[in-house]
Amino acid sequence: MQTLSVDLGDRSYPIYIGEGLLNQPELLLNHIQGRQVLVVSNETVAPIYLATIRQALSGLHYSEVILPDGEQHKTLDVLSAIYDKLLEDKHNRTTTLVALGGGVVGDMTGYAAASYQRGVNFIQIPTTLLSQVDSSVGGKTGVNHPLGKNMIGAFHQPQCVIADTHTLTTLPQRELSAGIAEVIKYGLICDADFYAWLEQHVEELLACDQTALAEAIYRSCDNKAKVVASDEREAGIRAILNLGHTFGHAIETAQGYGNWLHGEAVAAGMQLAAQLSEKMQWISADDVDSVRHLLLRAKLPVTPPAMTCDQFLSLMAVDKKVLDGRLRLVLLKKMGEAIITSDIAEQDVRDTLTDAGVSA
Amino acid sequence: MQTLSVDLGDRSYPIYIGEGLLNQPELLLNHIQGRQVLVVSNETVAPIYLATIRQALSGLHYSEVILPDGEQHKTLDVLSAIYDKLLEDKHNRTTTLVALGGGVVGDMTGYAAASYQRGVNFIQIPTTLLSQVDSSVGGKTGVNHPLGKNMIGAFHQPQCVIADTHTLTTLPQRELSAGIAEVIKYGLICDADFYAWLEQHVEELLACDQTALAEAIYRSCDNKAKVVASDEREAGIRAILNLGHTFGHAIETAQGYGNWLHGEAVAAGMQLAAQLSEKMQWISADDVDSVRHLLLRAKLPVTPPAMTCDQFLSLMAVDKKVLDGRLRLVLLKKMGEAIITSDIAEQDVRDTLTDAGVSA
Repeated sequence: MQTLSVDLGDRSYPIYIGEGLLNQPELLLNHIQGRQVLVVSNETVAPIYLATIRQALSGLHYSEVILPDGEQHKTLDVLSAIYDKLLEDKHNRTTTLVALGGGVVGDMTGYAAASYQRGVNFIQIPTTLLSQVDSSVGGKTGVNHPLGKNMIGAFHQPQCVIADTHTLTTLPQRELSAGIAEVIKYGLICDADFYAWLEQHVEELLACDQTALAEAIYRSCDNKAKVVASDEREAGIRAILNLGHTFGHAIETAQGYGNWLHGEAVAAGMQLAAQLSEKMQWISADDVDSVRHLLLRAKLPVTPPAMTCDQFLSLMAVDKKVLDGRLRLVLLKKMGEAIITSDIAEQDVRDTLTDAGVSA
Repeated sequence: MQTLSVDLGDRSYPIYIGEGLLNQPELLLNHIQGRQVLVVSNETVAPIYLATIRQALSGLHYSEVILPDGEQHKTLDVLSAIYDKLLEDKHNRTTTLVALGGGVVGDMTGYAAASYQRGVNFIQIPTTLLSQVDSSVGGKTGVNHPLGKNMIGAFHQPQCVIADTHTLTTLPQRELSAGIAEVIKYGLICDADFYAWLEQHVEELLACDQTALAEAIYRSCDNKAKVVASDEREAGIRAILNLGHTFGHAIETAQGYGNWLHGEAVAAGMQLAAQLSEKMQWISADDVDSVRHLLLRAKLPVTPPAMTCDQFLSLMAVDKKVLDGRLRLVLLKKMGEAIITSDIAEQDVRDTLTDAGVSA
């Protein structure tokens, strides 16, 4: 087991990474401060892993909520089911919420914990690669609104994160690939060595090699933790974590949540960002080809779905990364170094989109 | 105009108190950082004061939401209307929300600001005495759940609070009295001099004397600000602000939100707390009579409604002030000094309730 500490002053917490951690109940129990606990999972993950967690928590005042699976259920209405259960079972401010599942479960449980009685503790047990490398680090929690993703939420840090690589053996290949998209992102934005490592090991990740997965998760979380520690409330540099996300959010919104996986939309978005970065003459055509090749090896999409330029631009404009009407984009200054810019001409964005097959 | 500074480090903010402050638009404009603003009010307050605020903000990207009036509308569903408007009108992270109304508008607007895009700025313009002395200080925001008051929420500090005493001239007498209940609370829990001042001036407050109101608001906010500054997240001493509230919440919940005003329930709750404090031999029978007399002069209820002891105790048990199943109460160690205790025997609570006319 590797342990990574996310350094945020009095809200610091450890991330435990390794194979078989769900079978070490003390990892979980050491971070539960009161006698009450509510586990939130979903109907896909619960049948596989919930019994183990329930057993680990058998000595406590225990409740559980099973949510429907999928991004389309990341809503205020579904969130209410968590509040209802907490109140029906008389959970008080000393309770701990445990998220057992992917990013949707983690984001919703974290937001329920942030807002229940104005804030209670929570623990993340992410069971997808995407949530292990992304949504369990950084304290972002929330739900979607019909008019935009993650529009309602809070920053709320967990007590700990338990990333058991063994849970990835039951993950569908498509979701594993979606997670690798975010892993590749860390290489692109801030760690050229890691990007080179990924070019060597991407097939091992796809094959669920436990050692390679643990290494990829550790290095992704380490990179993310460094960025987050320097900018907890996302005032500036943290925005580099959104490489590919502004394009990606437009794709997800246009296609309806859940049709494209988040990581798939980010992959196509990163490819667009790379192409726009080339247009700015920051990276080379060879670099763009390298990104495309690595994404394709990871079995990820590299072209956007059937949409128009106007649709893209309109949906990008409601993304949170827009400041006072100016489109702010994360691009690549070079391989392994992201840049945040508001100086891209709309025509260059349009040209990049049409070059990628989007209708004008 | 008096200005009180609430000292919370980088979340410090001023409270402006005085007559006619709504006619000083620069107070508001100085605290709006971006170009977007959304004003939330309710259907009672908006017809009287919204035009003035709309005029003050006429140069900005401006939106408004008018909520139905009353505690029964402090729900997740009504909150959604604020999110909807923010997204429909493309408000981004630089927006400022302005709460124009009483405690319900303030709590909901504050919570919308805390949770929209994980946190945007907001300004409180409280137009009731209760919200001027209570809900606009301390950063508590939130909505009710059918199973409990304020069960969903966040701590979120405003950019400033503008308390215009002139708005109290349009307040119904019953709501003015409900506000005075909280004012009396500050005297009881931490300021014996202020309690003595109130015994001299309570009729002036009822008559809407502007100077007396400004003084009462300033001293209430000052007392609350001192308590909050020492315990922003309500870990300990801040709980003294809940004198009368655990009994009061039981009354409000049993009667249905909106039938008893919050301040009325707190008044009856404070009277019960005083009686229980006498039973503990901390204050005298004369002290209890003094509390009853002052509450009656302020035209407030001093006896609970028709409820049973079991109903009281059951509803008190879901109040947030309960820690791990132990009933924690705020009582009076002496006049002007509150104490937080978990050591009260249930039988003493029952006896106090039955002495007050509650059926066994």
